[in-house]
Amino acid sequence: MADSSAPTRVMMAVNESSLKGYPHPSISCRTAFDWTLSKLVRSNPGGFHFLFLHVQVPDEDGFDDMDSIYASPADFDQMKQRDKIRGLHLLEYFVNQCHQIGIKCEAWIRHGDPKEVICSEVKRVQPDLLVVGSRGLGPFQRVFVGTVSEFCVKHAECPVITIKRKATEAPQDPIDD
Amino acid sequence: MADSSAPTRVMMAVNESSLKGYPHPSISCRTAFDWTLSKLVRSNPGGFHFLFLHVQVPDEDGFDDMDSIYASPADFDQMKQRDKIRGLHLLEYFVNQCHQIGIKCEAWIRHGDPKEVICSEVKRVQPDLLVVGSRGLGPFQRVFVGTVSEFCVKHAECPVITIKRKATEAPQDPIDD
Repeated sequence: MADSSAPTRVMMAVNESSLKGYPHPSISCRTAFDWTLSKLVRSNPGGFHFLFLHVQVPDEDGFDDMDSIYASPADFDQMKQRDKIRGLHLLEYFVNQCHQIGIKCEAWIRHGDPKEVICSEVKRVQPDLLVVGSRGLGPFQRVFVGTVSEFCVKHAECPVITIKRKATEAPQDPIDD
Repeated sequence: MADSSAPTRVMMAVNESSLKGYPHPSISCRTAFDWTLSKLVRSNPGGFHFLFLHVQVPDEDGFDDMDSIYASPADFDQMKQRDKIRGLHLLEYFVNQCHQIGIKCEAWIRHGDPKEVICSEVKRVQPDLLVVGSRGLGPFQRVFVGTVSEFCVKHAECPVITIKRKATEAPQDPIDD
């Protein structure tokens, strides 16, 4: 059976590790990426086209810079530039992996509330599939952390696959990711 | 790249059309099945193994038989037998399609609350992926209908893909399926 149709466009929302920070990808999104490669793409890299979206949260970025002094607009520009570079290094991890396997891909950064931005980007880009990692939090943790994946399953205008972290990969503090 | 690893085991929960009844599959599960074939399996039928589960709801089955008279245990046996045959005809639709494409598959029937049974079957069978169709109901309809897909995303012990019906396929009454 020839694979003559257009490649399946898979959008993946990726974020940095909450424990290690940039440029390390979170356990959830690395698990989701690896799973997608081994279980869906399999031996057919030409049949898929990956779209990596990294959403930076304006209020949370730059927390490491609490000791820095922002005295001029240029300081803020520099901070934004640094955040952007960190985000690009995160995306580089995924783009490099795709390149090695022979999967075409694109990657870009947006700013805002991840769940809202992911859904609006789905609307704009119209992928065939959205892949979201999930920390598999219990109901108690969910109240405080909120879950991007639950929101996307309900609101994204395309099929959504939710991939929980494996139990063996869960850190003691489930917020770590 | 050779596809030497074991096929990806895809479990699909399928049900009958709420409008047309057996043996017609619901719009949601037919949409989910067609999408999975064209967007994930693509030209690689040997890389996937489908597992079709149909859950019959004991209380709702046999509604068409309201005028029948049940006078002996044999009458109930006969009714159960008829339900089973109806369920098998539903599964036949999917098994035939897989056979034509060259995808290996299995199919079976269980009884109970669909969302509970699906999750317990996931635990037992351990598929790589669970595919659930969704009627894409709004919050108002969701209260009355409940959604199997939301429950499975939260509780099934494997990655779950939720595939909503396309807007063009939605009937006027969203309960119809």
